[in-house]
Amino acid sequence: MTEFPTSIGSSDAATINLLGQDLANDLMGHVGFGELAFWLVAGRRPLAGELRLFEAVLVSLTDHGFTPTVIAARLTLTGAPESLQGAVAAGLLGGGSRFLGVTEDSGRFLADALSDRQDDLPVDDDGWDALARTAVRREHDAGRLLPGLGHPIHKDGDPRTPVIVRIAEEEGLRGPHLRLFEAVGRVHPDIIGRMLPLNGAGVAGAALADLGFPPEVLRGFALLARTAGLVGHLSEEMRRPVGLDIYRDIDQAVRYRPRPPSP
Amino acid sequence: MTEFPTSIGSSDAATINLLGQDLANDLMGHVGFGELAFWLVAGRRPLAGELRLFEAVLVSLTDHGFTPTVIAARLTLTGAPESLQGAVAAGLLGGGSRFLGVTEDSGRFLADALSDRQDDLPVDDDGWDALARTAVRREHDAGRLLPGLGHPIHKDGDPRTPVIVRIAEEEGLRGPHLRLFEAVGRVHPDIIGRMLPLNGAGVAGAALADLGFPPEVLRGFALLARTAGLVGHLSEEMRRPVGLDIYRDIDQAVRYRPRPPSP
Amino acid sequence: MTEFPTSIGSSDAATINLLGQDLANDLMGHVGFGELAFWLVAGRRPLAGELRLFEAVLVSLTDHGFTPTVIAARLTLTGAPESLQGAVAAGLLGGGSRFLGVTEDSGRFLADALSDRQDDLPVDDDGWDALARTAVRREHDAGRLLPGLGHPIHKDGDPRTPVIVRIAEEEGLRGPHLRLFEAVGRVHPDIIGRMLPLNGAGVAGAALADLGFPPEVLRGFALLARTAGLVGHLSEEMRRPVGLDIYRDIDQAVRYRPRPPSP
Amino acid sequence: MTEFPTSIGSSDAATINLLGQDLANDLMGHVGFGELAFWLVAGRRPLAGELRLFEAVLVSLTDHGFTPTVIAARLTLTGAPESLQGAVAAGLLGGGSRFLGVTEDSGRFLADALSDRQDDLPVDDDGWDALARTAVRREHDAGRLLPGLGHPIHKDGDPRTPVIVRIAEEEGLRGPHLRLFEAVGRVHPDIIGRMLPLNGAGVAGAALADLGFPPEVLRGFALLARTAGLVGHLSEEMRRPVGLDIYRDIDQAVRYRPRPPSP
Repeated sequence: MTEFPTSIGSSDAATINLLGQDLANDLMGHVGFGELAFWLVAGRRPLAGELRLFEAVLVSLTDHGFTPTVIAARLTLTGAPESLQGAVAAGLLGGGSRFLGVTEDSGRFLADALSDRQDDLPVDDDGWDALARTAVRREHDAGRLLPGLGHPIHKDGDPRTPVIVRIAEEEGLRGPHLRLFEAVGRVHPDIIGRMLPLNGAGVAGAALADLGFPPEVLRGFALLARTAGLVGHLSEEMRRPVGLDIYRDIDQAVRYRPRPPSP
Repeated sequence: MTEFPTSIGSSDAATINLLGQDLANDLMGHVGFGELAFWLVAGRRPLAGELRLFEAVLVSLTDHGFTPTVIAARLTLTGAPESLQGAVAAGLLGGGSRFLGVTEDSGRFLADALSDRQDDLPVDDDGWDALARTAVRREHDAGRLLPGLGHPIHKDGDPRTPVIVRIAEEEGLRGPHLRLFEAVGRVHPDIIGRMLPLNGAGVAGAALADLGFPPEVLRGFALLARTAGLVGHLSEEMRRPVGLDIYRDIDQAVRYRPRPPSP
Repeated sequence: MTEFPTSIGSSDAATINLLGQDLANDLMGHVGFGELAFWLVAGRRPLAGELRLFEAVLVSLTDHGFTPTVIAARLTLTGAPESLQGAVAAGLLGGGSRFLGVTEDSGRFLADALSDRQDDLPVDDDGWDALARTAVRREHDAGRLLPGLGHPIHKDGDPRTPVIVRIAEEEGLRGPHLRLFEAVGRVHPDIIGRMLPLNGAGVAGAALADLGFPPEVLRGFALLARTAGLVGHLSEEMRRPVGLDIYRDIDQAVRYRPRPPSP
Repeated sequence: MTEFPTSIGSSDAATINLLGQDLANDLMGHVGFGELAFWLVAGRRPLAGELRLFEAVLVSLTDHGFTPTVIAARLTLTGAPESLQGAVAAGLLGGGSRFLGVTEDSGRFLADALSDRQDDLPVDDDGWDALARTAVRREHDAGRLLPGLGHPIHKDGDPRTPVIVRIAEEEGLRGPHLRLFEAVGRVHPDIIGRMLPLNGAGVAGAALADLGFPPEVLRGFALLARTAGLVGHLSEEMRRPVGLDIYRDIDQAVRYRPRPPSP
């Protein structure tokens, strides 16, 4: 049979190896849960400043109220109260391109814009603005939406964005992705013709990219953060259920309309 | 329309309220991710010692190698590489009664055994052993398996168990559920006729119960911990995929056998 | 490596074997889709009358409007429009004990009540009523709800129930499970003190049990039927989305309430 | 509250309306399950020939042995045997771009190639070949893979493909998508430099497109067909489980390798 290599871990009768460490003696009680999540994906333990920024990003992504994914999770628990894992899974499944994908798309957009300037990064805001103008114009001319801009509720500014930037600055981690993202915030109105706020999902993608994570794993951290939020909502749903009320209200607002013939 | 009450949070144009706090200014950068997960379910912020024990439990539940749920998640990514949320969800869906349910079942078994002794808890090991004997005998006589005992690999002792007990002791949190669970470890061989180790899922349930969480939410923390492990495995699967190799090996070992007629 | 036996099928370069048949030449164009679903689980091809009853049951279970599972599926598509499989999966995950489980629970309840009368079944309605009285009384005395009784909308009778019974009668398939279920409908008011209609999920379970399926697979057919309904709803959601409107209405009805302290 | 329009159905105390029909009296016992699935998505009842082709396509997509999705579903049942819906959902979640997406991608590729020739379709094989050459060359020059070509097992021809074409021909439904797909099979070797078989997922997409379905719903039918296959596999897994054996074999083939430092 084929051998399957892994760097995550292994175990024998007496020991559990996780990431090359002795889980029981070297990790439990010595590393935090957020720290371990970073380590599992990065393959290295975060420094203290990195961990503070990383956990701030996770905290910022944990919950946003009764989002479509939270409603879906609560309604799933209504039908299958014996299967908490099913309700959490249903909630995560809405974490696709439209909501959670923004974090990944922003990280990728910024990484792409930086990719041919690796050895020649701007040294001041004017330089970052110029680089941002090129990237924004290319997206705009191609008819693509800029990821990480705009928010249905926080129209005049997402409160999470400046806090992530500040924490990154405090920890010496305000790197090229964040600087470019901030520059996008400054230059885009002249190009697209209106002012949109830099949103929390976008700044999360920029900060995670500055922590060294590649775009394709960013959605994973958004899902991890969201899982904590879902567990919170579902434990509330167990104590004080609203699923049947949501169902009843929606059901009463449904109106049957015969389907119009296809053209 | 009905109003739907929630204690998780709310937001307006300028502020995001999570758990009654200002997310951006009071939580981000000030609370860790594990701390927030505790707070979301408990409705209160953990003390430092509670948090250390809680995170040790999460760390202990994060990963156990190529478990059925990890294999399912990796194979799901093979077929739907564009949908990381689908692969994480598939992995969580195996977190049912047989594996993750042990944490919940242990917490419930211990809570039930303690429920009519709330104001009259044992004061020494002999007292705990007597209480454990009653509870173990009741399960054994009813033909039910004792939750939290036995492990397919760690037959002579699960290395996580003594570490959780030690951390709880260090933090002044070795409460009635853990003490009863330890007593179950001492008394069960005389009753069921063989010695089984107290496993990591069981001790996790006992520790979480001593932290004040009711049995029905315990599986939620196991799912949260497992999500971090799944994100780690799936980011490895992206870098170095094994899904198609697993598929090929299994497929080659399948043998068609006509179905025998029903009796 | 271990060999894994299966009676479902196998394939080589030139042929696909499904259920011991040549898929391309013997099944495609020759068996219907519902017929194949029956065959896959039963291990035998249905007779014409069995197939008519089986498909009537599937048709009866396909859709019930904007149920919690349909709402969850539509909201999941809102967040992940690129992943139809995720939206279908989210919809199915609500198919647990509270809704779809009724079909399975009814089948199991009836099978259990019949299990010690296999060679001595009643021969007339009085006999069935007596058997039903024993079974209903046992559940009622044990404080358990009778599966398959009652419906939130069809309070005076579920229109699906008499049609399933009639089709079974027409096809010579009104067997012991259906007869016992009908008797439960006659005798339960005297025992539980009120009249509840025999619901569609319950009669589906009875009919499927009379077709020879064991209780543990019945939920599978409910899930299959529901998948067709979900695909219908989701294709409508693609043409004329309501997910964001549902989200907005619910979100506006949410009210933050500080969590009361635990007792 | 907003009203939510639907053409799927509605119900009141006495009647269930599905697709504008009386479910109990007009549909149950009168339409087959496959027929209803067609109707739900198309918004119209299929003619007899359409139904035969449609069901042949569903039958062709139902199962392909121990695929990654089947293995994931079986392993999920191992961990959560109480939640059949979770195991089915886990299986469906692998139905993404790599496997099930082929049906959709083929339908879309063919529809796109036909879109500017709507009123001027070829009248003979030479005409179809010319149109196919243009479409194949455009994909090939853009470095994109042609959807619906090639199969890991059926290297010399997928046995399902000619059968779908034949049934479509018999029913007068061999329309432009199938004709163009056949032409792709004839012309591609000269352009891409090797001969690949037209696979079953691709021909399914072509046939469904000829039945009038738009590309974005095609994956839904593949998911429906796959659900029947999964229910078959999972009912076998209940009778004769292999999940723990698969886990053990894979687990024993895993080898821990320290992660190489990032570049």
